[in-house]
This record gives sequence, structure tokens and C-alpha cells, in this order.
Amino acid sequence: MELITIRELYRNKEQYIGKTVKVGGWVRSIRDSKAFGFIVLHDGTYFETLQIVYHDKMDNFAEISKLNVGSAIIIEGELVATPNAQQPFEIQAAAIEIEGASTAEYPLQKKRHSLEFLRTINHLRPRTNTFQAVFRVRSMIAYAIHKYFQDRDFVYVHTPIITGSDAEGAGEMFRVTTLDMDKLPMTKEGQVDFSEDFFGKETNLTVSGQLNGETYAMAFRNIYTFGPTFRAENSNTTRHAAEFWMIEPEIAFADLQDDMALAEGMIKFIIRYVLENAPEEMKFFNSFVDKGLLERLEHVMNAEFGHVTYTEAIEILEKNNDKFEYKVKWGSDLQTEHERYLTEEIFKKPVFVTDYPKDIKAFYMKLNEDNKTVAAMDLLVPGIGEIIGGSQREDNYEKLVARMKEMGLKEEDYDFYLDLRKYGSARHAGFGLGFERCVMYLTGMGNIRDVIPFPRTVNNCEL
Amino acid sequence: MELITIRELYRNKEQYIGKTVKVGGWVRSIRDSKAFGFIVLHDGTYFETLQIVYHDKMDNFAEISKLNVGSAIIIEGELVATPNAQQPFEIQAAAIEIEGASTAEYPLQKKRHSLEFLRTINHLRPRTNTFQAVFRVRSMIAYAIHKYFQDRDFVYVHTPIITGSDAEGAGEMFRVTTLDMDKLPMTKEGQVDFSEDFFGKETNLTVSGQLNGETYAMAFRNIYTFGPTFRAENSNTTRHAAEFWMIEPEIAFADLQDDMALAEGMIKFIIRYVLENAPEEMKFFNSFVDKGLLERLEHVMNAEFGHVTYTEAIEILEKNNDKFEYKVKWGSDLQTEHERYLTEEIFKKPVFVTDYPKDIKAFYMKLNEDNKTVAAMDLLVPGIGEIIGGSQREDNYEKLVARMKEMGLKEEDYDFYLDLRKYGSARHAGFGLGFERCVMYLTGMGNIRDVIPFPRTVNNCEL
Repeated sequence: MELITIRELYRNKEQYIGKTVKVGGWVRSIRDSKAFGFIVLHDGTYFETLQIVYHDKMDNFAEISKLNVGSAIIIEGELVATPNAQQPFEIQAAAIEIEGASTAEYPLQKKRHSLEFLRTINHLRPRTNTFQAVFRVRSMIAYAIHKYFQDRDFVYVHTPIITGSDAEGAGEMFRVTTLDMDKLPMTKEGQVDFSEDFFGKETNLTVSGQLNGETYAMAFRNIYTFGPTFRAENSNTTRHAAEFWMIEPEIAFADLQDDMALAEGMIKFIIRYVLENAPEEMKFFNSFVDKGLLERLEHVMNAEFGHVTYTEAIEILEKNNDKFEYKVKWGSDLQTEHERYLTEEIFKKPVFVTDYPKDIKAFYMKLNEDNKTVAAMDLLVPGIGEIIGGSQREDNYEKLVARMKEMGLKEEDYDFYLDLRKYGSARHAGFGLGFERCVMYLTGMGNIRDVIPFPRTVNNCEL
Repeated sequence: MELITIRELYRNKEQYIGKTVKVGGWVRSIRDSKAFGFIVLHDGTYFETLQIVYHDKMDNFAEISKLNVGSAIIIEGELVATPNAQQPFEIQAAAIEIEGASTAEYPLQKKRHSLEFLRTINHLRPRTNTFQAVFRVRSMIAYAIHKYFQDRDFVYVHTPIITGSDAEGAGEMFRVTTLDMDKLPMTKEGQVDFSEDFFGKETNLTVSGQLNGETYAMAFRNIYTFGPTFRAENSNTTRHAAEFWMIEPEIAFADLQDDMALAEGMIKFIIRYVLENAPEEMKFFNSFVDKGLLERLEHVMNAEFGHVTYTEAIEILEKNNDKFEYKVKWGSDLQTEHERYLTEEIFKKPVFVTDYPKDIKAFYMKLNEDNKTVAAMDLLVPGIGEIIGGSQREDNYEKLVARMKEMGLKEEDYDFYLDLRKYGSARHAGFGLGFERCVMYLTGMGNIRDVIPFPRTVNNCEL
């Protein structure tokens, strides 16, 4: 007889009640009296557990009653409706097989463990309620993102992880090498000879797929990337990891307005998808992790996002400078406190801030006609601050070259990028969504280490 | 007026014929006579092109007629049915705007370019027919894989890219470091001091997410990974890249039979998805890249895959040893020539080879009762050979430890992995699918460099 999942039992219970079913899973708790016992079983396919009732008519009654928490078992028995109990049904076991026992030393005993402790057992923590919920929702968000773009005929592009370009901020990049560190090859000039390295030159881990993504947008019109990116930042915060995933759509024949519409649609789509497909998990987060979560997400899903220019935003913020640690004026970069004030206190909903001063933004952003600001946008959401950053790209060859010169970038490092402006340039725009920040936003989890299966941070690369 | 995509025009043509539409795209070719001209337009959303007819009534007729191939333009005009032409419709342009011109030096002139040449312009080659087809199909295969697993409630797990484990074959791994190569910190003993490195120890790029994936299968029951993996192999072949993507599902309460059923279902699902969603691209491959492709894929989609044990396969192959460069006997690893002979000549369909000698397989594979073979499987397909490799995993703690000792592995490096066999061990199995090999299989493309947007191989890390 085939094993059935607990998810399937809940999904189509009418089909199974009164029938014999076979279920495999892990013991969450067990208690017995003289003649019978109860097992709470979890099989990893569904957030809710399944109650098993077993009797001393079973040959191995005593053995079963001695099982430790965490044991893997397979149960065959009748699924019985329990209209007066908390759960809609239970299994009256006819037979229980022990698949793999556990021990009294199993670290996940039936009690509440701190997130800090659970971080020390990354390989076991997905068996707890919190991480069952986090990582199933993480998986669903990833799929929702793919679905959003694929439903709209976007092409998914795998931009490279190893890159030979050190143009985007080499200080914060990880080097990739196969050179023998104990005997590095040297040039005649006494420098490390990277022509001996695997790729014949210096290489790093990518910090963004955007420039590569643009080359594909100019071929497929609408594309997105979804892959890992890396920052070797020596910062030990709850919001930074050295390895994280990014989504970077890029759309051609499109301007900043189109870009914002795409981002707004995506955020709403993801929220709707997760609320529909993981209601139990989301209820759990709302009860135990972040009390206002569901209300906030429903509000975001139904609100029309706000729009404000950076210049207008600064006017608003300057009037409230007494409330901020960092005082703002035109030209300042916005800090999280300012971002949250705008979205939480002023707009009370997600808001796009647009048209930032060119001096605090990247070289590739399209210069506005005022020659002072660029067609950039950040999306700020309540509870987080910035969740998305994007821009229309400079599509004019001369303006782009001038901007690169101003910023001290070498043209020859960007030949391929300039080619896009030589051969059929078209207005285009895109944005970046930090995947983990998105997972934190939808689950209410406060530490990035708790939304990544095996997090990598300074001095931490376990398993 | 909003731009419409060429894909949308083809998809719902009834809605648009006789109406005014606005389309943006790139000029594939252009020719004019005195009073009118024709443009073949491609917008990247659809494999087919769109014909534009324009007339000298337009003010910029002369300017348009001088456009170079590759120019980006925006056309407004009526979509007119052309029942007698090759294409179902064309646009009678009322106005054409030049979005971005091109030049006579544009490398993609209207002629056939070699794949070798196109590899030198990775940023432009996706604008050609071949690479439009390859990279749209690549995107669809990726989505089909996600859909297959998500429809079955598998949890997508992002296993780590940077890993501190060097246990899986350090010789072929890329090192990840932030140490200053010009002045490496040294220990008193004169060794490089990796405690000063970003993670406080030596780290590498992952070669497989399997062991991490197993920890999640023992929590969620059914999981899959889909991420980049790396091999620093110094091999310059048409089938090896230093950076490639892998899919690694892992299923608990499941054995080798379940594993093979999952793999067979996945391959058939992917093929069906691509044939349904990219018929034009697949027809193109069948006509211009690999003549037998469609027939082969249809056959695979409808055939029941064969099954043969390694021992039986060797018996068959030994009788044909005169046909092989490498002669086989029991204990030999199978080469591509043997694999292809089995699937193409003997079975004439995809075939699973199972139960390989333990000595040619990895330590974690489940030992069979004969104590000589392990519960491994390779899926061989016509035209390629091995496309999937998998196994049931050793779930018995003592047997796994014994096997690790035999192979000289240190238990302390695998504490987390052994924990899975201590606390509720359950039979489980999984496999690995090389994503690029899958794309080659479905498109008929012969060189892995031509199915990766920006390929990384020895001495090659461009863009």
C-alpha cells in the first residue's frame, strides 16, 4: 500500500474518511496509558499534525510506547472523523512499523527552543514549527516569483556567478581562485600572476546580474534573473548575509512608470499567492512571530501604492528632522528611519520614491532633464523600509559615456554595455528585489539568518 | 497607446486584425522601392517575426529606408490579414518612430554566422534565431522543472553556494577568499592563516547540494534544489563547464523505485511542457540543428523507460566489446560509448541502469544485500548517454560509518549527516540532473557553451 501525505489527507479528506490509509512521518510527541496511546505525527508535507491512536492489541504496543521524540514510523489504519476534537480526523492504527528510532538525546524535545539555539543545528531546525513555516513559505515565494514573470512571458536568464568584472566595487567582492595559496605564481615584477589562475585572470563572485541582464532585455525585451549574489561586507547585522538571492527583471521599450507598475504587480502577486497557498503557515506567523502581519499584508495587497519624488520626500522629512537620528537635507541618502517614517507615518502604505539626486545613485541610471536627478525608484514598505530598488537605464550613448567619465569608470571595461547603446538602443528599466528581504517581509521574521537554510555571514560558514 | 508584443498578436490575432496597434522591436531586415518598403521586425517576445509595410506618405520615409539592421523602432498602424502570404498578417504602418538607430558595423548582419563567431559576442548573440530559441527554451525548461516539483508539493531549498566542506573532492573546487593575495597572513608554522579569511576558515564553491538537501528531506519529506554548482576541472570539452546549474530532488520514505518513477515523470513532463509552449522553437531545432529531434523526444515522452541492472548491462556489453574503444568487464565504469549503445542499440529508448558496484560509486549510496552493489541508478537517453544519476541513500547509521571508514572519510566532517541516521532515520533517495545537459538534450545543441548565456570554462570568463 502506498504512503499518503498528511497534506493530501487534509486536502481531500472526504475521500479518505472511513478508509484504511498508510502514512509515514516523524513523532512529535507520544503518550500512553495502559491500554492505548496517542502519537502526534508530522510528515513535513503540511503544517498541521496528525493524531494517531494505537491500542495494546498491537504486538509491538510496548515498543511503540517507548519511542523517543523524532522517531520515524509508518502507520496503517482507518482515518476516522473526529467532529468534536480540534483536528478534523485521526488514525486508528492497525499496525505501526518503526522506520528509524530516535534517542533521548534528540535536540528537539517537545519544548520551545530559542532561535539562537536552533541556529546551532541548521540541519535539524527545519523540523520545528517555525522553520517548517519559514522554509515552505520561502519555497512558495520563489515559485510565485517565477510564475509571475513566466505568466507574462518573461525569459528567465541565468546570469553568471563567477565574473571577471571587478568594476562594481571590488572591495566587497569574494575572490574565486584555483591558485595554490602556499606557492602563488609570481610575475617578473613580483606580482601574483593571475594569468596562471583557472580563468587566466582575476575573478570574483557576482554582486549583481543587472548589466548581463540588460544585454538579454535588448534581445528578448522582457527578462528576469533569479540567482545567488554575494557581498563580502564585514557587517554583522540582522539584515545582511554574505550570500543571498536576488531577482532582477529588466524590461525594454519601457520607462520608470512601467518599472514601478511591474514591481507593484509582483509584490501583490506574491502576497496573494502565499496567503492562498500557505494559510496555516501565515496564521502561525501572525500569532507567534508578528502580530500585525496579516492585516499589513492584506492592506498592501489592496492598496494602490503611493508615489513621491525624492525632492518632495525631503521636504516632508525636513519638517520632521527632530524625530530622526540622521537629519536629512536635499542630497542626503535616505536611512531606514526616514524610509519607514515615509511609508508608515506619512503614506501609511507602500510608496515609491523617485528621481533621486544623481550623485547618490549608480552610473547607469537615466539622467532626468533637470540634469540633477536620475529616473530611479525605491519601493518602501511598512515594517521594513526599502524592499526594491530600480531605475530606468541611461540609453543614450553619449550621456552614458559622459557619466562614466565623471565617475572615473573606464570605457573599455564596459564595451559590451556600450554596444547596447550603439546597436538599436531602446528605453529600458529594471529593478532588484532582495529575495531574503522579501521572505522576511512576508513572514515577519526579524533575522536574515532565520530565513536562509544555511546562512553565510562573517566567520560563519557551517554545513 | 500601449505597445503590444508580437507574441500577443500571434496568440490572439482575431482580436487585433483590422485594428490599429503599436509595436516596438528591432529591424531584422529592410528593403524599399520608390514608394514603399518592407521591414522584418523582431521584438524578442516570439520566435516569429512581423512584417511591416510602410509608404512614402510618411514624412520620415527616406530616413526609415536608410535604417541599419538592428535599429530599434516603434510602429503604429493597422494589423492586416494576409491570407495568401507566409505570415498570417502584417502591419500597414501609419507612423514609424526611431527609438535607437544602429550602424553599418552592427555585427549581426543578415547572413548566417558560425556558432564560434557568435561565442565572441555573448552580449549580442541572443538576438539571433538560434539563441532566441535556445534561451527561451532554457527558460521554459527551468520553469517546467519548478512546476513539476511544486505541483507535487515539493519544497524548493536553496542549498549554499559557498561551502566550508572540502570533503567532496577538494582538488576540483574553486576557493573563495577575501584574503589579500599580495600579503597573505601566515601562521607561526608558516602556513596561510585561513582563520583570517572572511569565514574564519577555508571555503569553496559547492559541487553539489545533495548532503544539505538530505537534511531538508528529513524535515519536509519531498524537496528539490535548483542552483549553480562548480567544477574546476581543467577539461576543454563540448560537455563541461566550470559553472553550471543542477537540480537535486530528494524524497523521504522512498526507495530507488520511487526515485526512478520521479525521474521518469520529470523528464516526460519537461518534454511535454516545452513541446506545448515552444512549438516554433522546437520546429526550428528540428529543421536546423538536429533533424531527428522531435521524433526522438515524442518517442521518449511516450515510451515506458527500460530497466536493467548494471550486472545484466555488462553481460550485454561484453558480448559487443569488439565495438568499443574501452572494453568493459564487471567493475568497469561505463563510458559514454557504452551508455549510448545500451540506450540506442539495445533498448532503443531511455533506460535506467541500476545496482552498480559499490567501488565505483559514492560513499552515501545504500548497500544492497549482496554487499557488492549499491542502490544506484543512472538514466541513459538516446543521443546523450547519462542524463541523470541518483541513488537510494544509506540510511543505516552503522553501515554508513563502516562505508566511510572503508573510504577514508572522517566521521567528524559528517556529524550533521550522521545525525540524520540517529534521529528518526528514514529510507530516502534522490538524483541529480545537470540542467545544461538537459537543455542540450531538448534542443539538440552540441556544445554546452551554446546553452549557457555567459559560459565559464578554462581560461574563459568573459562579461
